[in-house]
Amino acid sequence: MKPTIKDIALLAEVSPTTVSRVLNNRGYISRKTREKVNQAMKELNYYPNELARSLYHQHTYFIGLIFPTTSNPFFGELVFHIENICASLGYKILLCNSLDRADKEQSYLEMLQRNQVDGIIVGAHNRLPEYQRMNLPIVAIDRYLSDDIPVVASDNFNGGKIATKWLLDQGCRKIIHINGPHELETPANKRRDGYEQMMREAGITPVTYELPESLIYRRCLETVRKLFNDHPETDGIFASDDLIAATVFSEAEKRGLKIPEELKVVGYDGTETVRICLPYLTTIRQPIKEMAEKAVQILIQKIEGHFKEENREIILPVQLVKGITE
Amino acid sequence: MKPTIKDIALLAEVSPTTVSRVLNNRGYISRKTREKVNQAMKELNYYPNELARSLYHQHTYFIGLIFPTTSNPFFGELVFHIENICASLGYKILLCNSLDRADKEQSYLEMLQRNQVDGIIVGAHNRLPEYQRMNLPIVAIDRYLSDDIPVVASDNFNGGKIATKWLLDQGCRKIIHINGPHELETPANKRRDGYEQMMREAGITPVTYELPESLIYRRCLETVRKLFNDHPETDGIFASDDLIAATVFSEAEKRGLKIPEELKVVGYDGTETVRICLPYLTTIRQPIKEMAEKAVQILIQKIEGHFKEENREIILPVQLVKGITE
Repeated sequence: MKPTIKDIALLAEVSPTTVSRVLNNRGYISRKTREKVNQAMKELNYYPNELARSLYHQHTYFIGLIFPTTSNPFFGELVFHIENICASLGYKILLCNSLDRADKEQSYLEMLQRNQVDGIIVGAHNRLPEYQRMNLPIVAIDRYLSDDIPVVASDNFNGGKIATKWLLDQGCRKIIHINGPHELETPANKRRDGYEQMMREAGITPVTYELPESLIYRRCLETVRKLFNDHPETDGIFASDDLIAATVFSEAEKRGLKIPEELKVVGYDGTETVRICLPYLTTIRQPIKEMAEKAVQILIQKIEGHFKEENREIILPVQLVKGITE
Repeated sequence: MKPTIKDIALLAEVSPTTVSRVLNNRGYISRKTREKVNQAMKELNYYPNELARSLYHQHTYFIGLIFPTTSNPFFGELVFHIENICASLGYKILLCNSLDRADKEQSYLEMLQRNQVDGIIVGAHNRLPEYQRMNLPIVAIDRYLSDDIPVVASDNFNGGKIATKWLLDQGCRKIIHINGPHELETPANKRRDGYEQMMREAGITPVTYELPESLIYRRCLETVRKLFNDHPETDGIFASDDLIAATVFSEAEKRGLKIPEELKVVGYDGTETVRICLPYLTTIRQPIKEMAEKAVQILIQKIEGHFKEENREIILPVQLVKGITE
């Protein structure tokens, strides 16, 4: 059984009212009494009920996070940074992995509202009508949910451009882009736009392969195989995330293609995990920690009612990280 | 402003008492009235306050998770599975990334208690005295916290044995083990025990290198370099996690060692991310989803007061997954 205020009063030999005064820092309490009460709380392992306070103050310090899945290293790192920044500011994280499914996203949104979160940071993809109607501070990461919801993203268009430019500069001419399913309205589509613009500027027709499903890398392998069968002449691939690039690597190796002599690959995201596993992969690094910081900062501005209009859309710069050469 | 019961009553043209009755499913309400109230709640985007109910029923359906960091793919996958299983059972996750720091772990424990969580699943490492004193249902994953706290782990001792046996079977004789810092009391130490037993049975002196710090893979590279400098004759390495194995791979390649001809490597964990990035890595796969399922099941048994003594220590089997050969 959890200890109650009465138990503390009994142990500290004071009245329950005195305990309550110490807890709420109200009225005059002698230092000696305060120490006795604190000591009793410690001995009994008593913690004041923060939920009761939350209800009273209409401010829970809960922040809901909705992302596809922390299994993906990009979201795993992003969630880690958001949680750690929030913890340092006294906010607590209710985590939701939506798996890019609209039904899960919808029920998480309802759950978070029933649980009185102060705000939500969302990096899931479905354009649920719910977002238009919500009375809650929301910030989106890398997703456009509605005109009213601020977005923090990295510069996907420029990322697509510099990835493609790097491949062109290395002498590649048959460059193919692999992207997620087009019906998902993710800013990764802007990576494709950047790729297409650079290709056209170089006078080459862009070719994009789309994955049939998000988050399912088994399906990704089918697409990569089809690409190599359709276009054995491919000398450069720009993959819209690092795990797609990893799939390209292993399929290319299986086919006996020499990397980087015969095929050059650029990935996207640049998470720590993938940098450790594939240090020779050239990739476009997203500023994951900075994206987390900015999203939390803007959400708290919204919660505290001093949101600045210039924060409606924040685009952070990306960087090409060259793979190590052996 | 959030809508109140009064706003709903006004829109539905009923009394606030009627709205409250619908919400609490109390007293007789005609179907027509119920529909009018539900319609008004939907229009106003009203959600009943689950926190208020929690306080009343002394059951919050919050579960706290304390893990080192979701940036690490093993914990990223584990947290995903735990969260998804909990969500399907109506439980909500408060996420804490302790970064293997005792001070963070301590303050998260206090926060979770102040927020009235129903229970905690913990995979962090510090033997805080707090765990002995807590009045809360707790389940540990892969960590021994106190005699009273049930543990779900995979079979680390056998994992160490089968990894070493595989290297021996491949003809390796100069096999070195790399493990995390020894002062952390993690079950990964049992992987080391399994390695040492197999080596002694084969009549070979075991050699273990310890990393100076957990979670910092930059420091891991220093250790790997020292290992290769000290023991250029090494023909097999058993790494206590896949990211250490990945570091071995890239350092070996940099030194011109042929893998697998001159050096064979076995990792540990077998996460999806690492399987995609390093499909040719042989590894010991932990049953991550099953560990999540078992931990949630036992925690809920404790919360609901029907914990079974046989669940005090659950050891799930591991499996050697051979890397693909090119």
